[in-house]
Amino acid sequence: MKLLVVGSMAYDDVETPAGIRNHQLGGSVTYFSVAASYFTDVAILGIVGNDFRPEHRDLLTSRGIDTSGIEVVDGQTFRWSGSYLKDLNDAETVATDLNVFADFNPTVPEGHRSIPYLFLANCDPETQQSVLNQMTDDLQLVAGDTMNHWIVEKRQSLDHLMTQLDFSVINEAEARMYTEKSNLVDVAEGLLDEGPDNVIIKRGEYGAVLYNDNQRFIVPAYPVQNIVDPTGAGDSFAGGFMGYIAATSRHDPESYRQAVIAGSVIASFTVEGFGLDRLSNLTSEEITDRFFEFEDLTTFDTAIRLPLRQLTD
Amino acid sequence: MKLLVVGSMAYDDVETPAGIRNHQLGGSVTYFSVAASYFTDVAILGIVGNDFRPEHRDLLTSRGIDTSGIEVVDGQTFRWSGSYLKDLNDAETVATDLNVFADFNPTVPEGHRSIPYLFLANCDPETQQSVLNQMTDDLQLVAGDTMNHWIVEKRQSLDHLMTQLDFSVINEAEARMYTEKSNLVDVAEGLLDEGPDNVIIKRGEYGAVLYNDNQRFIVPAYPVQNIVDPTGAGDSFAGGFMGYIAATSRHDPESYRQAVIAGSVIASFTVEGFGLDRLSNLTSEEITDRFFEFEDLTTFDTAIRLPLRQLTD
Repeated sequence: MKLLVVGSMAYDDVETPAGIRNHQLGGSVTYFSVAASYFTDVAILGIVGNDFRPEHRDLLTSRGIDTSGIEVVDGQTFRWSGSYLKDLNDAETVATDLNVFADFNPTVPEGHRSIPYLFLANCDPETQQSVLNQMTDDLQLVAGDTMNHWIVEKRQSLDHLMTQLDFSVINEAEARMYTEKSNLVDVAEGLLDEGPDNVIIKRGEYGAVLYNDNQRFIVPAYPVQNIVDPTGAGDSFAGGFMGYIAATSRHDPESYRQAVIAGSVIASFTVEGFGLDRLSNLTSEEITDRFFEFEDLTTFDTAIRLPLRQLTD
Repeated sequence: MKLLVVGSMAYDDVETPAGIRNHQLGGSVTYFSVAASYFTDVAILGIVGNDFRPEHRDLLTSRGIDTSGIEVVDGQTFRWSGSYLKDLNDAETVATDLNVFADFNPTVPEGHRSIPYLFLANCDPETQQSVLNQMTDDLQLVAGDTMNHWIVEKRQSLDHLMTQLDFSVINEAEARMYTEKSNLVDVAEGLLDEGPDNVIIKRGEYGAVLYNDNQRFIVPAYPVQNIVDPTGAGDSFAGGFMGYIAATSRHDPESYRQAVIAGSVIASFTVEGFGLDRLSNLTSEEITDRFFEFEDLTTFDTAIRLPLRQLTD
């Protein structure tokens, strides 16, 4: 097992311009793990109620995902209800019922503690910290996401966690909120000042930015024409990114760039269907083709000299 | 003379987080021509009042710009007053006094009619059409910009003009307004349906998109940390873009991409100073260095295979 992810598992009710889906399998670790499974072996730490359906566990195991770290307890699985009718790029939360997720306090199974790559998906920073503390010295790289709620409610715990991250992966709006800056460079530098070695700012329809002390990499989102359901795009991005790094075990600038593209490729498929419909059914050819489309979308010839005019005066 | 631009010349009062400037030389053709002057010989078609200051004409001629097409008439030069205090990416117009620009009905000087490259900067589409009509068959390529006001008030004239453009260069918000679409692909295809061979959608802090039937190219904005005054960024982008094309006379996909980068490079300098302060004082080294920075910002290695996992089942 190469990659461990901890975070939420949920049943979602979503409304988008393409339609309505109720009781759709969701949650950050679900999208993350399916995305990462295209690149590496991934294990989940999560919690569900006894309403969790066998076919949903089967879906995960069919992708080679280790579900032994999913705790099943009496009660209902976390429910989230959201609408994208007003803004396809920003979900409006209609209802949140934490249910069994409210008491999520995971013990990392013995066999999972030496997994070398760890992603702390969006959840209580104290829970994220607890999981990180349980890992052994075999840990090679840890990345974490967060959201507005924790920036406000658990700022100190979040600040402490940030100092231990190799990568902070965060939405642009939340990065601005966290740093109280608006300019991209100020925001990126403000995040780095909090302690992570690298930051990835997720910009939704505008793509993503990778920033550290030595490099800046800005990648657009793939121009998806038919966006069916944006839910899970950010977690799929993180899953593709971490899956790539875990699969290669390479920790160099060039690999990080490729990993950002891998995440962007996977996320672009996620939004083409409701829930996991599209994400869970990708072929190697589809992924590879879109990877090369990213090259075509972004590349220009720098071998030609700029035709700069010399003014004589 | 390789490139002709028609549009507004103005004196601006601007307020930004960096300060206040009154009676600052502005207008679309001013920014455009100075930007283009780094690549090619450019001539202006514009109108000013007799308050137009000799040192401002001198600034243009010092950049090798042909100002013989600037009409000077009794009255005041166009005045625009705007504030960026609320949103650095979107000027709030405080006041607009068209003054002599209200009666702008340019006759293209005989010597300018055979100029091969033409940019119709934002102004009344009937004025843009009139200038286009006066050009000879030597015209190689024509591009045009517009704004929300004309989309609402002169839709028919604008639609007719669009069918004659090689490039429509337009802000993202106005492109969405024009096409009544929000998805990037829908917007780009909607614009192409109006008739231009290519569209360039300007996305401000998120960069630009080049779209035609055969290619898509998405480039980020250069991450400028100290944005002093965003005025003229879009016109500078267009000036760098058209200046590059006019200088090379190359009409192929790879050259268009390079031209988009050239425009992005020049625009990134414009916003680093008030008005023309920074734009009018660039060295070849600064421009070349930032061109290569764009390569570093956007390039990833596609020679490495993606580490895709094959699931056996």
